[in-house]
Amino acid sequence: MQEVDIIITGGKALLLDSKNTRLDNAAIAIKAGDITAVGQTEQIAKQYRAKKTINAKDSLIMPGFVNCHTHAAMTCFRGIADDLELMDWLNNYIFPAEAKNVNKELAYWGTLLATAEMIKSGTTTFCDMYIFEDETARAAKAAGMRCLIGEVLFDFPSPNFKNIEEGLLYTRMLAEKWQNDSLINIIVEPHALYTCSPSLLIKAKKIADDFNAPLGIHLLENKTEQEQLHEKFGKSAVSFLKDIGYLNERLIAFHCVCFSDEDMKLFADHGCKISHNPASNMKLASGVAPVPDMLKAGITVGLGTDGCASNNNLDMIKEMSTAAKLHKVARLDPTVMDAQTVVRMATIEGAKVLGMEKITGSLEVGKKADIIILGLNKPHLTPLYSEYSHLVYAASGADIDTVLINGKVVMENRKLLTIDETDVMQKVREIAVNVKNSLKK
Amino acid sequence: MQEVDIIITGGKALLLDSKNTRLDNAAIAIKAGDITAVGQTEQIAKQYRAKKTINAKDSLIMPGFVNCHTHAAMTCFRGIADDLELMDWLNNYIFPAEAKNVNKELAYWGTLLATAEMIKSGTTTFCDMYIFEDETARAAKAAGMRCLIGEVLFDFPSPNFKNIEEGLLYTRMLAEKWQNDSLINIIVEPHALYTCSPSLLIKAKKIADDFNAPLGIHLLENKTEQEQLHEKFGKSAVSFLKDIGYLNERLIAFHCVCFSDEDMKLFADHGCKISHNPASNMKLASGVAPVPDMLKAGITVGLGTDGCASNNNLDMIKEMSTAAKLHKVARLDPTVMDAQTVVRMATIEGAKVLGMEKITGSLEVGKKADIIILGLNKPHLTPLYSEYSHLVYAASGADIDTVLINGKVVMENRKLLTIDETDVMQKVREIAVNVKNSLKK
Repeated sequence: MQEVDIIITGGKALLLDSKNTRLDNAAIAIKAGDITAVGQTEQIAKQYRAKKTINAKDSLIMPGFVNCHTHAAMTCFRGIADDLELMDWLNNYIFPAEAKNVNKELAYWGTLLATAEMIKSGTTTFCDMYIFEDETARAAKAAGMRCLIGEVLFDFPSPNFKNIEEGLLYTRMLAEKWQNDSLINIIVEPHALYTCSPSLLIKAKKIADDFNAPLGIHLLENKTEQEQLHEKFGKSAVSFLKDIGYLNERLIAFHCVCFSDEDMKLFADHGCKISHNPASNMKLASGVAPVPDMLKAGITVGLGTDGCASNNNLDMIKEMSTAAKLHKVARLDPTVMDAQTVVRMATIEGAKVLGMEKITGSLEVGKKADIIILGLNKPHLTPLYSEYSHLVYAASGADIDTVLINGKVVMENRKLLTIDETDVMQKVREIAVNVKNSLKK
Repeated sequence: MQEVDIIITGGKALLLDSKNTRLDNAAIAIKAGDITAVGQTEQIAKQYRAKKTINAKDSLIMPGFVNCHTHAAMTCFRGIADDLELMDWLNNYIFPAEAKNVNKELAYWGTLLATAEMIKSGTTTFCDMYIFEDETARAAKAAGMRCLIGEVLFDFPSPNFKNIEEGLLYTRMLAEKWQNDSLINIIVEPHALYTCSPSLLIKAKKIADDFNAPLGIHLLENKTEQEQLHEKFGKSAVSFLKDIGYLNERLIAFHCVCFSDEDMKLFADHGCKISHNPASNMKLASGVAPVPDMLKAGITVGLGTDGCASNNNLDMIKEMSTAAKLHKVARLDPTVMDAQTVVRMATIEGAKVLGMEKITGSLEVGKKADIIILGLNKPHLTPLYSEYSHLVYAASGADIDTVLINGKVVMENRKLLTIDETDVMQKVREIAVNVKNSLKK
């Protein structure tokens, strides 16, 4: 009998390994943060004993979701302005709200609120881009969430830096500070090609190369951006990225709504990754990314929620549902983006996008125990013919009962164990009063 | 001091009246099923005392959702087949599953499961089309839900009738049996123009006219249907409906995805109603109904989930979110289908579609008390700048805590009071075993 820390027992399981293994009456043994064994409940019970047992009867055990693109602290702006023209929304609401309100406190508490929401809807890893990302890292660490964090870089001042040199130094500081952390990882994030000079882009890449870190960038989110960049560069944005050495396996592009066949070929040839964020693309009326074609081209595509100003939630189950249905109607083809493909995008494919597929995204021995348990004994999940179908077309974030990250239970039976949610909500409500007042003319 | 049955007190409220009144610290007094008073908590407390008080602190009080189109008993087929070509899906899964399995028992228990799901996600009224609708009515009555029920009519035999004359007699029986019921109302429902002969359509209309009941029909769900009907009639389907006297204020058309300007003008001129079912239209790749144009033309449009074979849920909050975002991306215009418009479609406009706006759909004195209470004290609903925004873009069905229908509390703090959900789920699981076995070749 081997002693382990935790055994999860008696549930159905989707492993999201390369064979899409599905188990009935599964058990998982966890030790020192790692998945030690995956198998039948009886078999695991014979080989292992644990300090703590989690009963997953009538439940589904699966890897936690990987949210490939968000701006966590923007929870503070959730619902402050919707249903507006893009430039009206940005110039009259979001940019002024950010300029007047974003500081370390907002970054910390906004992120902590985001982690509460993410854990409660089954996300165990997220990739973030915002301001004061050291605060984001501190909040994620406090919540016990795995993340990739990157300070947003552009050629104008941010609430965190007077000029881009300070921003680059801050990014280097983040990389050094967090480089050996068990949960926090660093990504270098120039905001977009229309906000960053070539000089900035090249300096950012140097940092990414020095730390072997990924590079993340908003790319081709809508038609206007595509046209303006083509005009600016005299070639496609992706060709420009190729010229400056950006196209490699560590590039993560967010959105890619207006993406040509040639763009896809270049991305596929160079192993670049994409975060698809369909709810945000719909709500901001950006367009429909050609995801079925991207997948056909062999590009690794994950799912992201984007931030709470443009979604307005961080729920990956909602995002899966949106992704599955949007492409069907956009192509008038009900066979594209089947449920299993979409669940993979929200888990193991997302982990690949972030370069974290060796530690998360599936339930396999040797990986970190990033695991969620979803209660199936509910009217809206009855009867059960297919777990994939229910996850994408019927479930909701509130069905997630228990969440483990890095082998630690961070939520049990919907009670958050690392975050005092009442306290966090109160802090964000206080911040929101100031945000609201700051927008009054 | 007037004595009433129930006072709901201390919540924020969206009344969904013609002024879209929003109240802080609202209270609602209910007596004999009716809304007796709506006002400030202090004012109501001075004038009324109640046997039962429901504390709505940190909560939103609003009218229950009106689901304008579903096939409730199809919960039994939830997730049995997805992501397939329409004809493959229908001919190899849904039609055989129905032919082999639909009987009174499935109709009753499938509907009862549906009512559990609907109440738990805030729906208080639904409009149903299926087979053995007397069982649907019995189940809705047992659950305490308000509904419009109609036996599906077509020119071939159904599990409930050998020929259409039997189907018409059954419909007449339903209308007579339930005509004075406080919750159950009857609709006459020829299935669609491609499954019903003109003779059937005219006989169905006679019943609707005799009972002053609405007529419901699937209409122009996709391009193929539109083209085939035009070929068949030598004119548009809506022109054909006009010729046979169908265009009046009691006509409710489901879907209307492929709907021309001329169709809209005819519908607007005659006061015909539409149920928009965006999740089903997306999942089945039917297309995008021109809802912003319908609204501009002055047509009353409500929201429906469609059945669980094609959605696969009955959650009106999900449907609102889908409706708001789908039209933005389809038109590349973020200003269409703003949150308030969509919440109205899911409540008062839906009630108008069903001809029930005098009794439900808004919180106004004299209407029946069909009320839901949604808990706001949650990370994903924090902070709160706009209740409409949160309902459409951030909330989930699981946020509904308490539901009253016709003045009766049917769910309190998420506990169903009229339905034994464990028992219902067990019965449907037993039915599902047979359904699954029946599809094995």
